[in-house]
Amino acid sequence: MSYLGVGVSPGNVPVYYGTNVKLIDKRVRVAELVLRCLICGLGVLAAVLVATDSQVKEIFSIQKKARFTDMKVLVFLVVANCIAAAYSFVQVVRCVVSMVRGNVLVSKPLAWAIFSGDQVMAYMTVAAVAASAQSAAISKLGLPELQWMKLCNMYGKFCNQVGEGVASAVIVSLSMVALSCISAFSVFRLYGGGNKGKSSARW
Amino acid sequence: MSYLGVGVSPGNVPVYYGTNVKLIDKRVRVAELVLRCLICGLGVLAAVLVATDSQVKEIFSIQKKARFTDMKVLVFLVVANCIAAAYSFVQVVRCVVSMVRGNVLVSKPLAWAIFSGDQVMAYMTVAAVAASAQSAAISKLGLPELQWMKLCNMYGKFCNQVGEGVASAVIVSLSMVALSCISAFSVFRLYGGGNKGKSSARW
Repeated sequence: MSYLGVGVSPGNVPVYYGTNVKLIDKRVRVAELVLRCLICGLGVLAAVLVATDSQVKEIFSIQKKARFTDMKVLVFLVVANCIAAAYSFVQVVRCVVSMVRGNVLVSKPLAWAIFSGDQVMAYMTVAAVAASAQSAAISKLGLPELQWMKLCNMYGKFCNQVGEGVASAVIVSLSMVALSCISAFSVFRLYGGGNKGKSSARW
Repeated sequence: MSYLGVGVSPGNVPVYYGTNVKLIDKRVRVAELVLRCLICGLGVLAAVLVATDSQVKEIFSIQKKARFTDMKVLVFLVVANCIAAAYSFVQVVRCVVSMVRGNVLVSKPLAWAIFSGDQVMAYMTVAAVAASAQSAAISKLGLPELQWMKLCNMYGKFCNQVGEGVASAVIVSLSMVALSCISAFSVFRLYGGGNKGKSSARW
């Protein structure tokens, strides 16, 4: 296992490449910051796109309005993306503050809290996207065997906007999954390489 | 941080409770085995319940048959649960073999592979359950705003059996999430407490 460019030779003699570690550590932190900003932005975008979407259609002189609240799963998508965006915003602030202060390593309890938070967010956004994608697929393709008709023929503009929202939410959920991997690494690092002075040989 | 009963006093003197570690380690391994067996059994049960489900209904002398293949999301649920069950079966065999041989710790690459595998399975089963639960909810409650009618009034027996399958799949996905936490701990342990002889003081 040679995470962060730290190699352990098969014999026993561990080698510690300080500069490499710093460089890769910096890259990981930048990647984390970029992903969190992306989630924050796209989470808000997805929530706004879905929540502001509506279309009025006149059928035999009866006006029908399609809204995101007609499908409870879209409400779940909006809420999940708002929570993910708010959480990411807080994390972005934390990242920036720790970068400005130059604290490379967070404390163990904080690393654990971030890891747990990222995991919860990742599962939540994946669940919201999966459920919404399922409804979106039925709306687009219909289910003739069950007499569930296509909605996108009728509410084309509404459907497209929801589709854009779901696409943003897909990127949010994939970014959350990637982030939860990064935060797992951050916890491992604290256990494996945190006490560099004392026992870098552990690597 | 005092995982596995290993305490670090605030001053500095780390204390290593060997017996406690062994006891808690054994409990964690038993919990892992139980969860993997549960996933294997309930995964197969969910797949069988959904895949064997069908109901024929006569409407105005026309016979209509409801099958799980009518909803693609149920096919995804069956496939995801089959994969999770097969994966868990392999893991159960590995757990039993390592218990019989008395190998308490797995190698780092293997621990990483298990951690990654558990994560993938957890996300996959959560996505499958979320999408299926969404379809199940529409089938049960209907969406009158969108003219998607309730199906469970018509295909009661079919719906109930799918509901039982989805319930099993929910337990499978929750167990997979719990397992991915356990396997994360297993990786941490290798970095934090693996080289006990060398540096138990790290705790």
